[in-house]
Amino acid sequence: MQNDAMRILISNDDGIHAPGIAALYEAVKDLGEIHVVAPSGEQSAVGHAITLSDPIKTRKVFKNGSFFGYAVGGTPADCVKLAVCALLDKRPDLVISGINLGPNAGISVIYSGTVSAATEGTILGIPSMAVSMNTFKDPHWETGARVARHLAQVIHDKGLPENTLLNVNVPNLPAGDVKGYAVTRMGRSRFVETFDRRTDPRGNVYYWMDGELEHLGDMNGTDLQALNNQYVSMTPIWFDLTHSDAIPHVKGWDLKWPA
Amino acid sequence: MQNDAMRILISNDDGIHAPGIAALYEAVKDLGEIHVVAPSGEQSAVGHAITLSDPIKTRKVFKNGSFFGYAVGGTPADCVKLAVCALLDKRPDLVISGINLGPNAGISVIYSGTVSAATEGTILGIPSMAVSMNTFKDPHWETGARVARHLAQVIHDKGLPENTLLNVNVPNLPAGDVKGYAVTRMGRSRFVETFDRRTDPRGNVYYWMDGELEHLGDMNGTDLQALNNQYVSMTPIWFDLTHSDAIPHVKGWDLKWPA
Repeated sequence: MQNDAMRILISNDDGIHAPGIAALYEAVKDLGEIHVVAPSGEQSAVGHAITLSDPIKTRKVFKNGSFFGYAVGGTPADCVKLAVCALLDKRPDLVISGINLGPNAGISVIYSGTVSAATEGTILGIPSMAVSMNTFKDPHWETGARVARHLAQVIHDKGLPENTLLNVNVPNLPAGDVKGYAVTRMGRSRFVETFDRRTDPRGNVYYWMDGELEHLGDMNGTDLQALNNQYVSMTPIWFDLTHSDAIPHVKGWDLKWPA
Repeated sequence: MQNDAMRILISNDDGIHAPGIAALYEAVKDLGEIHVVAPSGEQSAVGHAITLSDPIKTRKVFKNGSFFGYAVGGTPADCVKLAVCALLDKRPDLVISGINLGPNAGISVIYSGTVSAATEGTILGIPSMAVSMNTFKDPHWETGARVARHLAQVIHDKGLPENTLLNVNVPNLPAGDVKGYAVTRMGRSRFVETFDRRTDPRGNVYYWMDGELEHLGDMNGTDLQALNNQYVSMTPIWFDLTHSDAIPHVKGWDLKWPA
């Protein structure tokens, strides 16, 4: 592919020092001008949070003596807003968030800081994608990096529909074992939570949250199924939460005011 | 309405000591058994965050010598998960989040901790609604309280479609000036951010985020328009972010692996 000067903004939710963002950086660095703006520390499961009531600190991060990017004392969505509205001279052509350690498929999407960075890019009108590995240990970063690089080129070439970001999940396999790409929908699933109740040395109660993902309903065509079948899942997502099919039900109430 | 022993879980994102949750409590307390589980402090704009890597502290809160509810050192979504899975003996029949100071309409919905508490209730299979006042100052709590009480009864009576919560926004008016109820969709809008760059006494850079909401596209039928016209907006929302209309575009790429 010819280098036609893509300007790529990279962020994540695992933090600027995470191996996944380094793998992503290495994968795309020769595609153009790369800007890294990412949280100072881990920001997993922050959802689409933004920082309104606190100042947002920034710090330049160097790697091997060269400027690598900005560490931001905020959420992934903060990073993208701040990058586009304040830190970068020009708007990026593409936002990539990742590579995340852990899948963002099924219901996990709504808790995902990784996805929220890409959502923020989309809200700002910039083509955006989130890339996550379907594992919490021993990730095949090289496979995720290859997928990210390929899809960056495809999106740059073909674009994404308006108000749409691409949520990509990568099977944790050597590239040769991946079966292909699947265009998917967000699977139905839920966490079955357990709370471990403990008491601190002063007698105060606290809990640790833990949970297992339970698949619900028809798996056909979902991101969860694609990953099970060793495919890269690509789910186009957006941020209009209106459940249009439910509008007739609520209209049927025919409510009058005053109540 | 006869009291047929509704069990209502109340939460919010402004914190257990906020006046909005007190107004909500007073409005519904005679409808049945009320449980209050809310953040210890303000948790606005936390999105759908959950606390996985830290312990979640709980503390009993008393008002006028009586047990009022649990203060939780976590997010609104944490509160609902913890309440349903650990603190309450029985599942609630209804989750109400609010009453929030500030609207959760248009794009604000995706940043909203208020909505995320109701979303979490819905994920857990419990009918849920979020209630917000369309103002940041001098709220007419009495109007929001009347709406919340009315809709709690309606939902208890008529139910909500599966996987659907009701996102309610209330005009900041005396009850007599409200025009009625409107069934709406989430409006298109975005924040136009400004970042105020400052330097601390030690020379470190930080930013304050500020922004104004800009309305986009067709306002017809939206929550934003309903509020402008002095109607209570009721938007059925859900948590499947798949943008189905965009699937053919991505399928059209016809991507092959290996890339």
